[in-house]
Amino acid sequence: MLAKVHVTLKNGVLDPQGKAVRNALSGLGFAGIGEVRQGKLIEIELAETDRAKAKRDVEAMCRKLLANTVIEDFTIEFAES
Amino acid sequence: MLAKVHVTLKNGVLDPQGKAVRNALSGLGFAGIGEVRQGKLIEIELAETDRAKAKRDVEAMCRKLLANTVIEDFTIEFAES
Repeated sequence: MLAKVHVTLKNGVLDPQGKAVRNALSGLGFAGIGEVRQGKLIEIELAETDRAKAKRDVEAMCRKLLANTVIEDFTIEFAES
Repeated sequence: MLAKVHVTLKNGVLDPQGKAVRNALSGLGFAGIGEVRQGKLIEIELAETDRAKAKRDVEAMCRKLLANTVIEDFTIEFAES
């Protein structure tokens, strides 16, 4: 099973990387661009076949390693691989 | 309109960052983990309301700035914001 984890900065947390992307896009001539925010996408191949168990495992991985839950949120999706 | 861009390394391109995450997860005691790959998630607020036009714009942004199409693939999703 393939787990896709999206890690994004919480609302209200400054995102200088996103701001740099926004400025670069404006500099390239793209108009009508509002806020840009950059996050991480982590794809994990799991041997586990039980989705509920896999969800608990991946949540634990996020809390322990993948996301800094003080400033970041995470969402988890599963796809058959 | 909110565009969500996923930028991932193409298959076959080495992903040392993903490998480091995999090793760290194993070190934390998580078992049954196969390949881990890390990509980017970029959320862009657009003033454009026509979805077809927005898609063309965001594709151009990806090709010009957001993705290195030699080694990366990108996918674009839209959500009402």
